[in-house]
Amino acid sequence: MDAEKRLPFASDYQQGAHPRILERLAAANMEANPGYGTDAHSDHARELIRTACNAPQAEVHFLVGGTQANAVAIDALLAPWQGVVAADSGHVSIHEAGAIEACGHKVIQFPEKDGKLNAADVDAMATSWEQDENHDHMVMPGLVYISQPTEYGTLYSLDELSALRATCDAHSMKLYVDGARLAYALAAPSNNVQLSDLARLADAFYIGGTKCGALLGEAMVFPKPSTCPHFFTLMKRRGALLAKGMVAGIQFETLLDGDLYQQIGTRAVEQAGRIAQAFQTAGCELMHPQETNQVFVALDEKRYAQLSARVEMSFWEQLADGRTVVRLATSWATSDEDVDALAALLGGIVLPGN
Amino acid sequence: MDAEKRLPFASDYQQGAHPRILERLAAANMEANPGYGTDAHSDHARELIRTACNAPQAEVHFLVGGTQANAVAIDALLAPWQGVVAADSGHVSIHEAGAIEACGHKVIQFPEKDGKLNAADVDAMATSWEQDENHDHMVMPGLVYISQPTEYGTLYSLDELSALRATCDAHSMKLYVDGARLAYALAAPSNNVQLSDLARLADAFYIGGTKCGALLGEAMVFPKPSTCPHFFTLMKRRGALLAKGMVAGIQFETLLDGDLYQQIGTRAVEQAGRIAQAFQTAGCELMHPQETNQVFVALDEKRYAQLSARVEMSFWEQLADGRTVVRLATSWATSDEDVDALAALLGGIVLPGN
Amino acid sequence: MDAEKRLPFASDYQQGAHPRILERLAAANMEANPGYGTDAHSDHARELIRTACNAPQAEVHFLVGGTQANAVAIDALLAPWQGVVAADSGHVSIHEAGAIEACGHKVIQFPEKDGKLNAADVDAMATSWEQDENHDHMVMPGLVYISQPTEYGTLYSLDELSALRATCDAHSMKLYVDGARLAYALAAPSNNVQLSDLARLADAFYIGGTKCGALLGEAMVFPKPSTCPHFFTLMKRRGALLAKGMVAGIQFETLLDGDLYQQIGTRAVEQAGRIAQAFQTAGCELMHPQETNQVFVALDEKRYAQLSARVEMSFWEQLADGRTVVRLATSWATSDEDVDALAALLGGIVLPGN
Amino acid sequence: MDAEKRLPFASDYQQGAHPRILERLAAANMEANPGYGTDAHSDHARELIRTACNAPQAEVHFLVGGTQANAVAIDALLAPWQGVVAADSGHVSIHEAGAIEACGHKVIQFPEKDGKLNAADVDAMATSWEQDENHDHMVMPGLVYISQPTEYGTLYSLDELSALRATCDAHSMKLYVDGARLAYALAAPSNNVQLSDLARLADAFYIGGTKCGALLGEAMVFPKPSTCPHFFTLMKRRGALLAKGMVAGIQFETLLDGDLYQQIGTRAVEQAGRIAQAFQTAGCELMHPQETNQVFVALDEKRYAQLSARVEMSFWEQLADGRTVVRLATSWATSDEDVDALAALLGGIVLPGN
Repeated sequence: MDAEKRLPFASDYQQGAHPRILERLAAANMEANPGYGTDAHSDHARELIRTACNAPQAEVHFLVGGTQANAVAIDALLAPWQGVVAADSGHVSIHEAGAIEACGHKVIQFPEKDGKLNAADVDAMATSWEQDENHDHMVMPGLVYISQPTEYGTLYSLDELSALRATCDAHSMKLYVDGARLAYALAAPSNNVQLSDLARLADAFYIGGTKCGALLGEAMVFPKPSTCPHFFTLMKRRGALLAKGMVAGIQFETLLDGDLYQQIGTRAVEQAGRIAQAFQTAGCELMHPQETNQVFVALDEKRYAQLSARVEMSFWEQLADGRTVVRLATSWATSDEDVDALAALLGGIVLPGN
Repeated sequence: MDAEKRLPFASDYQQGAHPRILERLAAANMEANPGYGTDAHSDHARELIRTACNAPQAEVHFLVGGTQANAVAIDALLAPWQGVVAADSGHVSIHEAGAIEACGHKVIQFPEKDGKLNAADVDAMATSWEQDENHDHMVMPGLVYISQPTEYGTLYSLDELSALRATCDAHSMKLYVDGARLAYALAAPSNNVQLSDLARLADAFYIGGTKCGALLGEAMVFPKPSTCPHFFTLMKRRGALLAKGMVAGIQFETLLDGDLYQQIGTRAVEQAGRIAQAFQTAGCELMHPQETNQVFVALDEKRYAQLSARVEMSFWEQLADGRTVVRLATSWATSDEDVDALAALLGGIVLPGN
Repeated sequence: MDAEKRLPFASDYQQGAHPRILERLAAANMEANPGYGTDAHSDHARELIRTACNAPQAEVHFLVGGTQANAVAIDALLAPWQGVVAADSGHVSIHEAGAIEACGHKVIQFPEKDGKLNAADVDAMATSWEQDENHDHMVMPGLVYISQPTEYGTLYSLDELSALRATCDAHSMKLYVDGARLAYALAAPSNNVQLSDLARLADAFYIGGTKCGALLGEAMVFPKPSTCPHFFTLMKRRGALLAKGMVAGIQFETLLDGDLYQQIGTRAVEQAGRIAQAFQTAGCELMHPQETNQVFVALDEKRYAQLSARVEMSFWEQLADGRTVVRLATSWATSDEDVDALAALLGGIVLPGN
Repeated sequence: MDAEKRLPFASDYQQGAHPRILERLAAANMEANPGYGTDAHSDHARELIRTACNAPQAEVHFLVGGTQANAVAIDALLAPWQGVVAADSGHVSIHEAGAIEACGHKVIQFPEKDGKLNAADVDAMATSWEQDENHDHMVMPGLVYISQPTEYGTLYSLDELSALRATCDAHSMKLYVDGARLAYALAAPSNNVQLSDLARLADAFYIGGTKCGALLGEAMVFPKPSTCPHFFTLMKRRGALLAKGMVAGIQFETLLDGDLYQQIGTRAVEQAGRIAQAFQTAGCELMHPQETNQVFVALDEKRYAQLSARVEMSFWEQLADGRTVVRLATSWATSDEDVDALAALLGGIVLPGN
């Protein structure tokens, strides 16, 4: 381990793209493609996504990043008098610099549990709005935002997702799933929500590229056609349309053509599992169940100082008892060597990598 | 020439990136970089840009595309009560789906001449606003938008640019230069406006990447520091912040490290010159002077039919006399073979390529 | 005539309200009404308006002022990807401080003739948009804005209005009529457009109160129900909902209960006719036909100086020949004495007032 | 008591205006005033407000209603990257249909206690934002919104207000006070915050008219000049500018010329005190201290049914124990007879009215 270079667990977007993506970009480099996502690669990627989602009528649009994807799609899905229901910990609630509000919509925030919204809580809130005789003076809850996996790396079960869908139906709300890290959900041993379930249950969701091995790009899926008319123009209006649309198209073509997206997810989840085990073996408490590629762990002062010097991690929060919560994230690029080195730092024993 | 494949002159963003860019992206692929433009490549690219602009204090931010760059920067430069002054033909006026208005600002449009605004006209308009006793009920002209080269491929001379700057100063307006195709301006034989002039005369401008050989990316330059406080957050709020910021950083590092940006421009302008000459030799009228990488030419019905079958061009407009105006664009990727093939179609004689 | 006090022809909103309105406000003052327009006066006013418009299904909402009415209704009528087509001289184009753009929509401006849009021009523009192969990158024309009478006091004939409606139908656009001064149109001898015509031909229009004898208030009429769902909440969201809704309701109840609105219009148009005649007799040129309550007249330097000292007028523009165009406006409050005094200043002979 | 007519305690905006206001409006009706708040009455009202606030440099603007006043002023006070800190119960948080968000800003909500924010909580939140290493991805807290009295009729003490000011200073935030019901705060026996304190401690506040005896109107006070440049145009842009500005000017002139505003407040607070006492005597629990003109009381099922049939009240919430919380509000128009009648219904003994 290079003393100068800390182990890279700060995020899942530190490296470039999975090598196969770079190869495909290079191979197509001299093609003369039409712009703005009308090229054959983008069309092929759309077809692969429709097939993977078992949603032959789905409309698919490629956006650049997660905040942009959320803002453009949620604004398109909402009427002007409606707002988004989200967990306090939701990306749209706190980590997008007010992008939803910049489009004119309120984020109606809820306390979360392990990063998740509960159907019963959402139902109670929507019912309360409906029964309030002044509700025409209030923002109508129009859409439920969740992320799969959540910002804490946890997963909605199929039952939980179905319950949210039923709640949305009962209150004429839309259901939107932020899949910035969807590869890691799909690859999680504890997961029972497949792409076809998302397509069946959500009004819109996106298959994350940036945090799942692409240079950039998020594939927004509207399972039912005409969900958002003129979405192309809405993307343009928000500066979200790539001139060289094939740059996104080729990447999703690569991720979905075969099982690369699954491979990327599986690899990262396994490495995260090894890391979680190493921390637990070392007596450190996990703050949330490690189900996907993120590990949230509480470190005492000494351990925090030791690791900070050698490991790139994300500071998460300070606990009242003096411990520091940090997040470690893995990706396709996480090497066995780096996981082993981390385990060695922790003095623990870890399962062999693959 | 493949009968199935038409000659690719539809735009300057049909191919991927200049090969050197792909090489550098591949070389850096396994580096663990911090996100959001805080990486060393982005910093290096910023430093190269400051040097090239002779603007050591300049702030530089990397955005993804032109419409986004314009909307985010212009919104940041304007007060809420101000609007943008632009030519009718300006990209912000007609081809950005209302992105400026989506940020709450009016585009105050002016008739253009060869795609350009005239300082005297702008001065008259601003004076008229100032003298109107009801001007507090009107949108204040706050910023002049021009593009270099213009949407018609023409160039502002240093005198014209200086006159616009003086007009802006006289009326407390800002001057913004859209450099989506700046490489082709800088490389034009008729150009006398250098990067350092832009940095001296404009409040903000961007060095175009997408249309000048990159996969994507535009480098916004604020020559004076603190021109737009919290621009990073404003980018995030508009969904314009790349998580993997190094993807833009590496590309601009490559373009500006050495003379690649100049090379790309020079090559394309020369090829456009050959194309313009071929058309003129064939008796076709150019609608605007060919100064950069775009050729606007009027074709009679027969010629239009002939070329449409063999050449990808952009339809521009229908003239009253029955002719069709089309646009041909060149780039780093324009081959001698394709230019020769076009010249052959036109039956003309062209200068040898290089 | 008081030497200190100039004759009040600056606008049609200089005085308070028609005395009958004040009486009715006073009479209802101690009633305990529910808020936000749900009171019996507002309901009665709505019913009177539906009857006057021969539109029994119409939805009617009371807003406070013209700019607000335009912005809230047009934003509600447009999809996010659409813009407003308006004359250069339209109130939404220049005298509302960018209120339409502040709601995110472009005003697509057209040259006017006597303040009016021409159906053929609008048709050509919409056709051009439809045929442009890049129109998904452009703002879709979604609504045609006109004012009746126009900002220059001129009138659309029923044929012209019908032609605009046909054009709107042909291009799936909505037709919106700004009736800030509608009383003066309805009372004009040259007018052949009745309230029922507006209700039949427009998707939305408002019956102006502020400039037609009320303290404030504009009655927005959506002839077809459900044209703008949740318009109440949209008004609230834009700060356009009066808590004491009866203040607007009582005023429109007064204006429409009987022929007060007609009386107010007739009186003002007659006085404007006398003023126009006095100017013409004095050899001054009218810039637009005087059809309603506004007189636009060009004054040479001497005449302008003479009148400015004695008459409140609105400066309109400076002509190249040195003359100044001013606007004089009349209202219910314009007295015979003041018109006579103006005529005396002009040295002309005027028809007796009534 | 008329069996058909219930006692009017639903709100403080059920009746028209204090009779003296109507008199003054009628007296000035035939004056020819300039528009948009440039008239002598508005100027006089501004001067009276400056004097009452001991703020000779203050800028004063008249808006129409509370939601509008909040949205226009807060949008003017905030930078685009900033949001509003408010209590969950704040008017901007829940009862303005997302008007703040429609201007592009997030409302960062906090749990309230008796409708109030606590300086320590605000300080902790702002500190947390400052210390978060990702805060450039988050909405910056830019302004603290409070209402005096609060939505629950409670009051900030001078100490509490000073503490909030200090917190704002410590974190470069602005302090904004919604004074929709300010007359009742100023008249409350428990109040120790005067207009001059507000002018000294707040960056902006408004003196409520609509809910304090006017037909409409709120007087926005910026104690320091140039706090919000071009506020006039910002009002216009949001449709908040009254053409007949004297309608607001005359009302505030009347309220502030002498002690009418104080009288109105005192009368209402006394009546609310009698009502609170009657409820307490009848064994009903007050949910918040009755300090101003609002009484929040929990009623058991039987009592609620009895009163609902005879009294107009506002439903507030359902308690888990089956009781219903209602709000009663008083105003200048609340008669002794109505309060006596309510007390009689409650079977209680009340202090004599005055």
